[in-house]
Amino acid sequence: MKIALNGKIVEVADARIDPADRGLAFGDGLFETMSLRKGRVRRLPAHLARLRLGAGALGIPLAYDDANLESQVTGLVAANTLTEAVVKITLTRGPDARGLALPARPKPTLLITTAEAPPEPEPARVIISSVTRRNEFSALSRFKTLNYLDNVIARDQAVQAGADDALLLNTQGRLAGGTAANVFLLVNGGLITPPVEEGALPGVARADAIRLTRAEEKPVTVETLIDASEVFLTNALGVRAVVRIGDKPVGDGEPGLITQLVATRV
Amino acid sequence: MKIALNGKIVEVADARIDPADRGLAFGDGLFETMSLRKGRVRRLPAHLARLRLGAGALGIPLAYDDANLESQVTGLVAANTLTEAVVKITLTRGPDARGLALPARPKPTLLITTAEAPPEPEPARVIISSVTRRNEFSALSRFKTLNYLDNVIARDQAVQAGADDALLLNTQGRLAGGTAANVFLLVNGGLITPPVEEGALPGVARADAIRLTRAEEKPVTVETLIDASEVFLTNALGVRAVVRIGDKPVGDGEPGLITQLVATRV
Repeated sequence: MKIALNGKIVEVADARIDPADRGLAFGDGLFETMSLRKGRVRRLPAHLARLRLGAGALGIPLAYDDANLESQVTGLVAANTLTEAVVKITLTRGPDARGLALPARPKPTLLITTAEAPPEPEPARVIISSVTRRNEFSALSRFKTLNYLDNVIARDQAVQAGADDALLLNTQGRLAGGTAANVFLLVNGGLITPPVEEGALPGVARADAIRLTRAEEKPVTVETLIDASEVFLTNALGVRAVVRIGDKPVGDGEPGLITQLVATRV
Repeated sequence: MKIALNGKIVEVADARIDPADRGLAFGDGLFETMSLRKGRVRRLPAHLARLRLGAGALGIPLAYDDANLESQVTGLVAANTLTEAVVKITLTRGPDARGLALPARPKPTLLITTAEAPPEPEPARVIISSVTRRNEFSALSRFKTLNYLDNVIARDQAVQAGADDALLLNTQGRLAGGTAANVFLLVNGGLITPPVEEGALPGVARADAIRLTRAEEKPVTVETLIDASEVFLTNALGVRAVVRIGDKPVGDGEPGLITQLVATRV
């Protein structure tokens, strides 16, 4: 298996991340996860735009233009002879001396990796995580940073409870999203999804789903969530129905019609 | 310069972190920063105890006992011929396939590095960060994890504002701590510090300072902070007086007597 590291395609065994990389020390970086289907990366321009937006906000120089990044992705996919896969781009602030202060001359690390496409997911039984909440007070909640451990512990809590995934509330106790997905609800016949101000990550598939369905961005209480007639998750890999929240089935406990419709398009 | 990687002392240029390390992918790991003075690591047992507590909570196996960890640290310090330095231990969940799910058989990464001891810090002028808050709802707020980017952006906000450091509030708007330190206040002649439940990291130096001064752990409003007659920061590297918060001097704008006294002992 090959990866692209700082613009060069190399065997993963030959790829070395510096122990002083700030991506490792502080999670000081960003990532994008994308779906490769039939040899094409879905929504690549939107993912690159989000990466660039985050890099600008964090002050991490991104030395490659979109055409170059696309050619790196294409080159890696070809080198690994893939047509169905997951492609991930990671950008860190790179290696630096100890300490929080930003390096005067950052040497960012750009890593592109591929992984096997996961099987089509089953409808999800979820819990509402009690081990963490999404911090909507942090500017970082708007970006897909390498600080992802809250999502890891929430997912693990779900697995330990015999569920598939967890939903995260924000610090006000309203719905924010999933551990690696945005969340949509069918309420009174209309779709709603938590706004970015509520701690929702501005997902690329989320944006597509909002455009497609004209879903309304509005704060979602736990009561609204529990009473929703359909609930589904969106991320780069697609749409996943939520059929159970804790002990309670969503609707009749089967993927709903709207969910199935959106899944064919997002 | 040498580092210790998974129990072996190697030149840093020969040390390779796997691009698939979950420490890089998710900040899935912990760290401890310690002070080496006159050839001895200060409070090493307390730092190792905290590391072990965090590893247990996160389910990251730590294959070395304290005596072994101490001998790795001692060996590295000797190999780098240091007597005054900063020593950092990083433990990650190690390399794994893509995805949040915990690996069935984790192969953790243990990294020990040294850095030059920083100069004695000047008294600090701080701001109250507005770009993030400490998430006391997260179980991670009790551990020193590699998810440290909120601290990085808060520190950078301070630097951009011409200050030395930032204080972080929690999501309720009360004081939680500094970007890499705990905070103590002299109020009505007694010392207070925010409790862990308020988002304060359970710092090793903080615990020593509480023992020494019998400081009371209690929630601290911004008003209390602004009106405190002395404010100081504690971390592994020592005690640092806070002499200005935003536009307002703390007390008479000079390090206070209690601060100076605690600094000689913590």
